[in-house]
Amino acid sequence: MESREVDVVVIGAGTAGLNAVAEVRKSGSSWVLVESGPYGTTCARVGCMPSKLLIAAADRAHQVASAGAFGISTGPMSVDARAMFGRVRAERDRFVAGAVKSTTKLPAEQRLRGRAHFTGPTTVLVECENHDKIELKAKTIVLAVGSRANIPPPFRDIMEHVWISDEVFELDELPESLAVVGTGAIGLEMGQALSRLGVKVSFFSIGSAIGPLRDPAMQRCVQEVFRNAAAEDAMAWHLEADIKMARVTHNDAIELQWQDANDDLQQQSFSHVLLAAGRTPQLAELDLDKAGVTLNERGLPVNWHPRTTRCGDTAVFIAGDASDYRPVLHEAADEGRIAGQNAARYPQITARVRRTPLAIVFIHPQMATVGVRFDDLQEDEIEIGTVSYADQGRARVIGQNAGQVNLYAQRSNCVLVGAELFCPGAEHLAHLLAWAVQQRLRVDELLRMPFYHPVLEEGLRTALFDLSKALQIEGNCSSTDFAESAGV
Amino acid sequence: MESREVDVVVIGAGTAGLNAVAEVRKSGSSWVLVESGPYGTTCARVGCMPSKLLIAAADRAHQVASAGAFGISTGPMSVDARAMFGRVRAERDRFVAGAVKSTTKLPAEQRLRGRAHFTGPTTVLVECENHDKIELKAKTIVLAVGSRANIPPPFRDIMEHVWISDEVFELDELPESLAVVGTGAIGLEMGQALSRLGVKVSFFSIGSAIGPLRDPAMQRCVQEVFRNAAAEDAMAWHLEADIKMARVTHNDAIELQWQDANDDLQQQSFSHVLLAAGRTPQLAELDLDKAGVTLNERGLPVNWHPRTTRCGDTAVFIAGDASDYRPVLHEAADEGRIAGQNAARYPQITARVRRTPLAIVFIHPQMATVGVRFDDLQEDEIEIGTVSYADQGRARVIGQNAGQVNLYAQRSNCVLVGAELFCPGAEHLAHLLAWAVQQRLRVDELLRMPFYHPVLEEGLRTALFDLSKALQIEGNCSSTDFAESAGV
Repeated sequence: MESREVDVVVIGAGTAGLNAVAEVRKSGSSWVLVESGPYGTTCARVGCMPSKLLIAAADRAHQVASAGAFGISTGPMSVDARAMFGRVRAERDRFVAGAVKSTTKLPAEQRLRGRAHFTGPTTVLVECENHDKIELKAKTIVLAVGSRANIPPPFRDIMEHVWISDEVFELDELPESLAVVGTGAIGLEMGQALSRLGVKVSFFSIGSAIGPLRDPAMQRCVQEVFRNAAAEDAMAWHLEADIKMARVTHNDAIELQWQDANDDLQQQSFSHVLLAAGRTPQLAELDLDKAGVTLNERGLPVNWHPRTTRCGDTAVFIAGDASDYRPVLHEAADEGRIAGQNAARYPQITARVRRTPLAIVFIHPQMATVGVRFDDLQEDEIEIGTVSYADQGRARVIGQNAGQVNLYAQRSNCVLVGAELFCPGAEHLAHLLAWAVQQRLRVDELLRMPFYHPVLEEGLRTALFDLSKALQIEGNCSSTDFAESAGV
Repeated sequence: MESREVDVVVIGAGTAGLNAVAEVRKSGSSWVLVESGPYGTTCARVGCMPSKLLIAAADRAHQVASAGAFGISTGPMSVDARAMFGRVRAERDRFVAGAVKSTTKLPAEQRLRGRAHFTGPTTVLVECENHDKIELKAKTIVLAVGSRANIPPPFRDIMEHVWISDEVFELDELPESLAVVGTGAIGLEMGQALSRLGVKVSFFSIGSAIGPLRDPAMQRCVQEVFRNAAAEDAMAWHLEADIKMARVTHNDAIELQWQDANDDLQQQSFSHVLLAAGRTPQLAELDLDKAGVTLNERGLPVNWHPRTTRCGDTAVFIAGDASDYRPVLHEAADEGRIAGQNAARYPQITARVRRTPLAIVFIHPQMATVGVRFDDLQEDEIEIGTVSYADQGRARVIGQNAGQVNLYAQRSNCVLVGAELFCPGAEHLAHLLAWAVQQRLRVDELLRMPFYHPVLEEGLRTALFDLSKALQIEGNCSSTDFAESAGV
């Protein structure tokens, strides 16, 4: 059996792993990169990019279908599923090619294809695709192994009949009806997109929430808007639904039985099912106990540190979706860089300041969370400012007037600490707010910033005014605004 | 003749005037508001709001027409002009009603309807609509009289045959062909919108620029994109075109003769002409010399101060479009407030800090300018960072990959001082940048902010990286980014 000694072993050639390698290379340390699956990142292959491409098509279909309100007539709309998915895949393949090229341009002898597992605190055995076995002795090891979709128990025996999100992008025709299991970001994005493309979509969640917003007032608004939109968008919502059984019927449909919110047993058949019930880091099969790393009952490492990415006092660093800390691309890239730097300089470890939390769900209206999570806010230390988008000027102009934004500021110093958004353009407004939170800007400072007219950003100003009243900030030139109050 | 003594006379019941009145009322001073035209602001009646409503319809038409690229088939598209303009007017009327209500709820005896002109430094004669003449003796006078469209000489005798932008919103059918005279914000917005609704549009400008961008590299990009888009959007561009003659032909068309960029004489007929050749403050007929205010050759007051809105050492304050300083709504509101406060407290005058300049043109791709104007940048004191949107990830996903952003930072301290934008979503990116400029953020500080993926904002990060290289800012965890360079 071949044995190699290197400074750093990086397992996983996704966004986090490639960023880790980039940092290790900069440091001059020796390294090996191990990947067990296809090259190309989760983001490019099956995540952010193909989902946004599908959403772009769905948005277009929705814009066509609702053009009449603007005086624009069209003949009957139809979705050419082959062409639609064809564009999704063609553009996705382009993004994937970019990611693959970033990998294959690395020296071939430092790239291993195969499965790795620990044989000791800093030794890893790689079972290569070509059946070679290679033992790697390292100073440190970076785990950037990503995550995989959770499969709820009722579906485990019929997996060849149900989809996870990865598989949707490979279709050439649209399902007739679809049960989406899960109302998190992936379920919502895929479900609403397919609904707008003409699929009858039913959402199921064992929880009572639609999407990531935790403020009860925001969640109420979300549910009102989506329950109103149900008829138009052909979406049905089954919350607090506990799926007890899933079986393939004689005509290849999937029958689901579930206990509903009233504890009544319901059943319905769907031509297809999409599982979007969360994702779990792929750490279980790495024999991490041999490295001194303990996983908790959810499969996450005990004592992982988000500012160093190190696991306890081991020589193991975990980055990207595998850490489950903030499983979004820009944080995966950051964790990869932090892990790579620390792995290369080990035992010298640097704790990096992380960015202000920012998460976006690309449905319509869009959702976003910024800064301190609502559940972590101390009720008696904050004030809430709110704005409804049901009558916001620009939102009316573009015919997308629905939703709400809640802003949270500290009573003691008037500093903005977080926000939950559910409104058109939330992806943009959330950046503005996240940058403000990261800078610890006060509400009165924010009200001095320019807001153009007529823009969706003016809604934030309304919410900031509301906050300034709650915080009893004294009026100044910027804190009253005739234009907004007059609706112009 | 009736004569009244009041503390403050406000002339003009638009955005600036109403904001001025609001501040005067707060102070407890007595006041009179004079308006010679219909109530309702320029913004709501004929400006921002109806233009954005027309653009919303045009965008929708464009989305329908280009849906095929996404695999979405429609029958032939047609624009029901009556319904389309009907929505524009219905929504506009709602916005106008809000503005009118803000005016009519003011005490009737303090509102005069009629034309005002100065009879002395602080006396004004109002010729009321009911033929009464009222003399107002004031301590101070706020002029918020707005602006009017410039009429170039060749069109002065045929004004009943040509439109200014106000008139477009009253149409019930679309013109067959349209010459748009002027390539500033109004001309571009209205021209492109009508083009997307099916009108053959030809733009004319005596200058060589399309839109407000002054950086030669940005202007080059704009012209490339629009000249490429010409065929699809049915827009023709005649820059450096000096219109010598305009006449009504026997079949009610308008024939234009112009000298082109090569000094050749050209002529062409259009079914209609839209004049968008800039606007001028309506100060000429106020007999301002009686108040000690001198107007320059462009009709603007000499010695007007943007931070106090006061004219020289007079008791006259000018606010809103009438000042011509920054003729956009949010600045008009600010100037109204500043003028109202200073007019009420006169002779005590406070100079207010103005917001960071921000201007947006709502065409596609959108244009925006932020911070220090390009012409005011000292070439040897700044570095430029750039990003092309021709291949930006999210822009590709939504099929709007065109344009460029240039960012300007000071060499001495790496502070961002300005930007010119021409890209999808520029209205949002410009807010992010304007807030950064107002806070005097450095390029390295900006690179530490969160950028989600995949978003248009990531393009700004690319431009900031470019700037950080030009500024030789040392690399840190935030200043390299694998994800962006890999195109994912």
